Amino acid sequence: MTVTHDVRRTVSRLADGRQIIYFDDTAEAPARTAVDSRELGPRAAAGHIRHDALTGDWVAVAGHRMHRTFLPPRDECPLCPTGRGSVPSEVPDADYDVVVFENRFPSYAPVAVDDVSAPEGYLHAPALGRTEVVCFTSDHESTFAALSPHRVRTVVDVWADRTAELGADPDVAHVFCFENRGQEIGVTLHHPHGQVYGYPYVPARTAEMLARATEHHARTGRLLGADLLAAEQADGSRVVLTGEHWTAYVPYAARWPVEVHLAPHRDVPDLVALDDAERDELAHVYLELLRLLDGYFVGDDGASVRLPYIAAWHQAPTRTGRDVSRLLLQVMSVLRGPGKLKYLAGSESGVGGWVTDTRPEAVAARLRELAR
Amino acid sequence: MTVTHDVRRTVSRLADGRQIIYFDDTAEAPARTAVDSRELGPRAAAGHIRHDALTGDWVAVAGHRMHRTFLPPRDECPLCPTGRGSVPSEVPDADYDVVVFENRFPSYAPVAVDDVSAPEGYLHAPALGRTEVVCFTSDHESTFAALSPHRVRTVVDVWADRTAELGADPDVAHVFCFENRGQEIGVTLHHPHGQVYGYPYVPARTAEMLARATEHHARTGRLLGADLLAAEQADGSRVVLTGEHWTAYVPYAARWPVEVHLAPHRDVPDLVALDDAERDELAHVYLELLRLLDGYFVGDDGASVRLPYIAAWHQAPTRTGRDVSRLLLQVMSVLRGPGKLKYLAGSESGVGGWVTDTRPEAVAARLRELAR
Repeated sequence: MTVTHDVRRTVSRLADGRQIIYFDDTAEAPARTAVDSRELGPRAAAGHIRHDALTGDWVAVAGHRMHRTFLPPRDECPLCPTGRGSVPSEVPDADYDVVVFENRFPSYAPVAVDDVSAPEGYLHAPALGRTEVVCFTSDHESTFAALSPHRVRTVVDVWADRTAELGADPDVAHVFCFENRGQEIGVTLHHPHGQVYGYPYVPARTAEMLARATEHHARTGRLLGADLLAAEQADGSRVVLTGEHWTAYVPYAARWPVEVHLAPHRDVPDLVALDDAERDELAHVYLELLRLLDGYFVGDDGASVRLPYIAAWHQAPTRTGRDVSRLLLQVMSVLRGPGKLKYLAGSESGVGGWVTDTRPEAVAARLRELAR
Repeated sequence: MTVTHDVRRTVSRLADGRQIIYFDDTAEAPARTAVDSRELGPRAAAGHIRHDALTGDWVAVAGHRMHRTFLPPRDECPLCPTGRGSVPSEVPDADYDVVVFENRFPSYAPVAVDDVSAPEGYLHAPALGRTEVVCFTSDHESTFAALSPHRVRTVVDVWADRTAELGADPDVAHVFCFENRGQEIGVTLHHPHGQVYGYPYVPARTAEMLARATEHHARTGRLLGADLLAAEQADGSRVVLTGEHWTAYVPYAARWPVEVHLAPHRDVPDLVALDDAERDELAHVYLELLRLLDGYFVGDDGASVRLPYIAAWHQAPTRTGRDVSRLLLQVMSVLRGPGKLKYLAGSESGVGGWVTDTRPEAVAARLRELAR
């Protein structure tokens, strides 16, 4: 495996057969041997994907997700270790450092039921793949930004581990590690967690980015991601943080009210390819970036506003374009002011015409102000 | 002009030089001669657009929009006729049927200031074009679904008029008529209104749809839009309403919790090309569709939920792909249940991987249930 940090990996199964993997990063962690005592019945299969001929995209139809757990009371949190709440949770053990398990309400899974009748001229396929939940800490009240650098390093190793394992699955065309934080972005569980999706196709935006990178490489012989990083470093007006191995910047054509890209200095296609030094520094740089983001807006009461965000790891697809793709973390927020959201309304959702109210250079200047 | 319905068109200017056009559809409407008495200073220029090299999209940077009017009190509504509220509004006259004026906080305008210094390797351009507001009625408390068929017919003529006029502007590459309804989709003014955007480029999603239509036409000699309509009509399981000139259906690969496409039976590239009979029937069919959508969800109190929606007219770009594009109205909602929103979180916003919780056939069946 690709775990080079000193992490203990324990693989087990939940009552319905779904895989659960504990990643412990403390020497004192007890063995993770607890058994899932719930009566869950058979695991839920994923549904199917449909091809949208108008746009070329695929859409996963997962009807059972309509009934997924939605903002449960604190003592019924399915991501807390079992024993902390009033009901057995998704994690049988009494504690954990980081834990990964297959989503109970999967958009993509190793078992999928393509139960659509096949209308003439329409393309569909089973929604094979994998959707996993990654719990960053057993502390329900915490948040990613409050993790220790040591723990974040473990999470980086977990992302790399999942990228490697899911990427080896012949059903998976693309692995996407991400975190949605905050109710404003639609989070249905407050416990600090992220997700990993293994898609059976290359998703539309990834395909678009790949097409641009391929075109750039054919034309210049260089990586588009490397050229963009070099341009941001040379310009400097949008750079937020610089380390030995990573640079964070507000992209020139940022489309979200607050958006930062974090790029490695070395050309790597994905998280798996990061070396120890890069992973160590990433833990520190990412925590500092999240600290800046949480200071970005100040409410009427003078307190800073915990920023809702999407953190999205753009990686090379598993089997195409690996020579032209370059790893990039995109962190973006829908918040355009305390209590004010940007909505993806007609222009963005209808025709893809983005309008932003905030100048990227001003966003970067504000974030630099907050840097230590 | 393309107005064939019996509509009186009165063109005037607001205090800062922006154009305002009254479209009156009642014989008793008095002449629209009121003068804008406000001291507005010079009109706001638009900003610039930036090219996102990662994805190929353009993003409009419009910093002044940050200060646009946000949910004003009822008696300061800028879309009510002047005299109804406590302050002069954007509409100098004491009443109107339908009125169109240039947006005071424009994303695109005939005057644009490209005030970005030109960093090496980045593309930018002035945000030339046009952004207009279309008020559907002077009644602040009304909604599109409550308009008379006669008034909707006027609105259709207005959309066609604006498409023709903006399309003739050499700065405009694409005309987009749309309505955002409901606070859940980010509406900042409650008065019933829509918008028309004249973009200086072909927006990303339109370009994607055009690429698919072009490819389909080259391969089959047929219009993709016509083939999709024929397939939906033949299948029938997702058809919601059928008229002599229009059919409404939930698309096979619908990505929004509630999504309906309304397509003309005749191959037309845009609203301008619709004839009188098609426009007349559109008014009735669209009103019936909106009635069904407003009955789709029933709240805990037994009352139906007024559906927040985006209504998006997909048309041929002004100067490219006119021979392969086909007019289509897409109505979509973010509501996935009473009080429950679909969020465009990590998967959708990060990589463009859409997951839907609702089966298109079930949505269509529910809407058919509500049909008269």
